[in-house]
Amino acid sequence: MMNPVIKALNFRHACKLFDPDKKISKKILDDILTAAHISPSSFGLEAWKFLVISSDEVKKTLRPACWNQPQITDASHVIVILSKPKLADPSHEYIKLNFGRRGLPEDATKAYIAKYKHHMETEVFPRMSAYAWCSKQCYISLANIMTTAASEGIDTCPIEGFEKEWVEKVLNIDKSLYEVSVVVALGYRAKEQPPRIRHPIESIIEYL
Amino acid sequence: MMNPVIKALNFRHACKLFDPDKKISKKILDDILTAAHISPSSFGLEAWKFLVISSDEVKKTLRPACWNQPQITDASHVIVILSKPKLADPSHEYIKLNFGRRGLPEDATKAYIAKYKHHMETEVFPRMSAYAWCSKQCYISLANIMTTAASEGIDTCPIEGFEKEWVEKVLNIDKSLYEVSVVVALGYRAKEQPPRIRHPIESIIEYL
Repeated sequence: MMNPVIKALNFRHACKLFDPDKKISKKILDDILTAAHISPSSFGLEAWKFLVISSDEVKKTLRPACWNQPQITDASHVIVILSKPKLADPSHEYIKLNFGRRGLPEDATKAYIAKYKHHMETEVFPRMSAYAWCSKQCYISLANIMTTAASEGIDTCPIEGFEKEWVEKVLNIDKSLYEVSVVVALGYRAKEQPPRIRHPIESIIEYL
Repeated sequence: MMNPVIKALNFRHACKLFDPDKKISKKILDDILTAAHISPSSFGLEAWKFLVISSDEVKKTLRPACWNQPQITDASHVIVILSKPKLADPSHEYIKLNFGRRGLPEDATKAYIAKYKHHMETEVFPRMSAYAWCSKQCYISLANIMTTAASEGIDTCPIEGFEKEWVEKVLNIDKSLYEVSVVVALGYRAKEQPPRIRHPIESIIEYL
């Protein structure tokens, strides 16, 4: 029997043409959002938020900011994944709150925060912004959203093709806290998926 | 019946203590690597590579570069996910080759490359390096690796806690092509998973 996750991953493709008349049920949408909710993030930071758009009006204003792609308006739902880069700042109150949830002794929490600070300052921030780093975590939830959807026969289209500032403007994003990381459209395909194209597996795997 | 992907996501936790005597079978490892292989990436770039480490010797030299975390040596396998940032350069020969695989007419391929170039130059590179951008894609494959593993009862620990240059040195990474994006340890848990901690789902989801 095929592994159920592989089966879902095989069903998944970047769906470009959705059937605008088919809507995702609440039960399935709840599963998809649960997948986002329980996704892991580095240091358990959960510096993300998920805007779940089903309003035709909102989709219509969003579409031109997303290269005018028809997926935005044809899909049943569009999820805009926001990151919260400011929360990654080691001196932000949120770090203390977030790490404190583990219920460790105060000394251990302090040591953990110091470790986080050192890591961010020596390894992460010299190479990328808090926005880019938080966005990486958002892509974990993006993957889990797509896989959970696929396991229920829901198609998705992950979308990087948008103008970030325009999207933030039409969605009235509070930029003092949020930035748009990635968008994903969800619904039912209007035509069969094309054959998958991948480089040979041998070219991307090396055993040591 | 619980959705099989949610079931896998519920099984998944950041496993800190692996049973060093339990090894992942070839069949399950192949499923996990298939998940990585068929993962999507922005523009279908597949600018990644997966080093699959089972050698005790390699794990031993890798461990100090990863905060000396015992997961590295106790886990059955460690996968080091490399990105290939140079390939994201719109003028790189790879872009032409990669986009050409779709079998579109030459004009359509050229227009697609121009669109890619414009997007990278106006939206991506002003905000992050090719390394950060490619790393985001790597996190999609990371998520799919973890979920597929979990669906087979395999535990994982995603690891950002490493010193990138040190890891690249001990693994003899050809830095003209590759950079380490993230590490994941895989094996069997040595003790039960702790309760999951997450912020309330209401705090991370908004419906529009």
